[in-house]
Amino acid sequence: MAMRSSEDLRPLIDKKKAGGKLDAKDIATWVQGVVAGVYPDFQNAALLMSILLRGMDYSETVALTSEMANHGSSLTRPKSMKRIGKHSTGGVGDKTSFILGPLLASYGLQVPFMSGRGLGHTGGTIDKLSDIPGVKTNMTPNRVEKVLDQQGFCIFEQNKYFAPADAKIYALRDASSTVDSVPLIVSSILSKKLQEGLHGLLLDVKFGSGAIMGSLDQAKRLGELLLKVAGAFRLKTTVVYSTMEQPLGFAVGNNLEIQECLAALNGEGPRDLVQLCARLAREMLRLAGTTKSLPTLSEINRQLASGKVLPLFLAGMRSHGAQRHAFDKIKLATKTLEITSHKSGWVKALDARKVGEASMILGAGRKHLGGGIDPEVGVLLQLKLGDRVAKGQSWARLFFRSSKNLSRVLTLLRSAIEVGNKSQKSPLIVAGVRQNF
Amino acid sequence: MAMRSSEDLRPLIDKKKAGGKLDAKDIATWVQGVVAGVYPDFQNAALLMSILLRGMDYSETVALTSEMANHGSSLTRPKSMKRIGKHSTGGVGDKTSFILGPLLASYGLQVPFMSGRGLGHTGGTIDKLSDIPGVKTNMTPNRVEKVLDQQGFCIFEQNKYFAPADAKIYALRDASSTVDSVPLIVSSILSKKLQEGLHGLLLDVKFGSGAIMGSLDQAKRLGELLLKVAGAFRLKTTVVYSTMEQPLGFAVGNNLEIQECLAALNGEGPRDLVQLCARLAREMLRLAGTTKSLPTLSEINRQLASGKVLPLFLAGMRSHGAQRHAFDKIKLATKTLEITSHKSGWVKALDARKVGEASMILGAGRKHLGGGIDPEVGVLLQLKLGDRVAKGQSWARLFFRSSKNLSRVLTLLRSAIEVGNKSQKSPLIVAGVRQNF
Repeated sequence: MAMRSSEDLRPLIDKKKAGGKLDAKDIATWVQGVVAGVYPDFQNAALLMSILLRGMDYSETVALTSEMANHGSSLTRPKSMKRIGKHSTGGVGDKTSFILGPLLASYGLQVPFMSGRGLGHTGGTIDKLSDIPGVKTNMTPNRVEKVLDQQGFCIFEQNKYFAPADAKIYALRDASSTVDSVPLIVSSILSKKLQEGLHGLLLDVKFGSGAIMGSLDQAKRLGELLLKVAGAFRLKTTVVYSTMEQPLGFAVGNNLEIQECLAALNGEGPRDLVQLCARLAREMLRLAGTTKSLPTLSEINRQLASGKVLPLFLAGMRSHGAQRHAFDKIKLATKTLEITSHKSGWVKALDARKVGEASMILGAGRKHLGGGIDPEVGVLLQLKLGDRVAKGQSWARLFFRSSKNLSRVLTLLRSAIEVGNKSQKSPLIVAGVRQNF
Repeated sequence: MAMRSSEDLRPLIDKKKAGGKLDAKDIATWVQGVVAGVYPDFQNAALLMSILLRGMDYSETVALTSEMANHGSSLTRPKSMKRIGKHSTGGVGDKTSFILGPLLASYGLQVPFMSGRGLGHTGGTIDKLSDIPGVKTNMTPNRVEKVLDQQGFCIFEQNKYFAPADAKIYALRDASSTVDSVPLIVSSILSKKLQEGLHGLLLDVKFGSGAIMGSLDQAKRLGELLLKVAGAFRLKTTVVYSTMEQPLGFAVGNNLEIQECLAALNGEGPRDLVQLCARLAREMLRLAGTTKSLPTLSEINRQLASGKVLPLFLAGMRSHGAQRHAFDKIKLATKTLEITSHKSGWVKALDARKVGEASMILGAGRKHLGGGIDPEVGVLLQLKLGDRVAKGQSWARLFFRSSKNLSRVLTLLRSAIEVGNKSQKSPLIVAGVRQNF
């Protein structure tokens, strides 16, 4: 394992593991070396673990974000239109991008969605389109600009053009169990968003059992650093803290979620999903500052229900290569199973993490990069927190491919629901909004 | 980077990075996987860094030591003789093994010295023999037993037969900057010593600028854990805490040190080296418990000066393959340079770390595994702490191969010495002795 000293990361590992601070030159050397592939992965992993356990301060995080954003192609900020980015830290049943893209396009904004392959309980945004006939999300920067100009939104993969430094580092973080570091999460998110040519950025930071950040306090630690680091790049940014105690909407699983989005785009979406989308859309419109008076949440809901937005989604998807009638028949696994309640009462808990894990075991998600995804399986909830349930009533329907692991899935799901004796208050969806402008 | 879950170390990494405790099964799985090569090195490195930063407790360290000691061949504890092991945590000019081997053989003990390739300011014990014509230290367990039976001491390499788990993990620790972890150091030392078939073990734990442990307090943390873990295996163990503020003896560099050992084996060694060897030898005799009355330090000194021990060393080396007259002419680099004092007074400091680094830059040591070593270069001190020095007097002689880096070496050496106005007390060599029996 002898290495030339020019390719040796040990001086930086030693600095960080002793609790020291990496300077901008250290960080630039490292990121450039990672892109060039000169450091052995075991040294990169040792550095990442010392960053995870020792932390990085504001200026280290800015330097890392900046250097990662320097690699790859940046889109050009448009002059005649406002381009507003959106990123969610992810959760179970999170599917707002498909709704926000065409919704904001209907208000004249441009919304790019650069997205990596998803980790977690269901696939990521890119994965959710993987089963739609004809759709291609692997695009050149030119193609992305064209789709944005024509359709107002574009969902595209992080590929060799976009933030390749982040892609390499993220793959290594996944493989070495160093994902859950606030400064590493911040630099990963913002280095991608800084390449989108944005006028403003909305960040949906989720908290609760189904999110990376378990509590609102933890979410705020992440959100505040995101705001501060985005500010260092003069990127107008809004953070919305939203709950992930229960799944968002009813559908968990890739094609199930696409189906739910089509309903929402037609004004028939689940209440919590529609509420969150309206709130996020309003903050994105505020960031754009293009409308004389900011539309109210009711006005945005009416826009979504007006029948104007679904055609924008379908036309947009055609620009992504979707075949005619691609969304007419969304395929689902043919084997299904109803899960019923053991008692009567009100739904008191519907644990997002457990529902998500159940869906992952069914095959809808991957725990680590490189795993495959089954788009047709998942969990379709029938109830939400606070709803009334009768003994024997179905509260979830499983769509599954094989009965392997089915007993584990059932055990998980049965432990996810709690039925209480009292009527519950409808839970909070958005717990706070913060801006850096 | 997708991996089969059976080869995935992430559950263990997650446990340790969260500050949790690895159980004996976790540790056995990991060590066996490392030996079989099933885990990617970046996961091993991430686990090692989380162990370094989160620590391991007593029972984890026992489990790791035990599992590492299970891999490879153990020597058989002899019935008719006492076999006492010795290990030093290393320092600048540390060369006691070559003296202790034949000295204790002269008292009828057996002393095995399993040794890895050295890291640090000069080569390790094995490296120091690398230039002696004919000597082979890469041996089978059978050969080691035979040399021990015939000669009373044996210096042999950690190879595929001996503690291969430790060898793999140590190489990875070196390459990933995870060497300096007390529990990892303890398990590495003891897993090797547990394979030597010992009746007792002496550990020379060094402290000071030239040692791994900078302070006596740090050395005691290491020493106490060594004693406790050795006790878990019912291995009678003595720890001697000895100083490494200045180099041990005058010679720093491989062939220079062999030359100094030959002098010491003839009763003409530097005072501090001889004193330390006598003290360590007495503790090893105490561990063996074979002599009716334990010899005094003076008696041991007389034994060393008697002329009986050098022939035992030379005969022992012949059993290691040394050619006839192999030790008659030890080669040294032909270029030399005297370093003189800028003022008169008493030597107040002679920084071991700086002298060691100077010798490493000359080529006598390697910072990391895989580097080559030049046996003929080094630093030969002329003075010790507390000695009187006149302005213009030489206090060190360099033996060097090329003048490349020579100015860096001179700067380092000039900053290593401090000359004061007052006579100094002769410094302490041994700062404490502790036993687990």
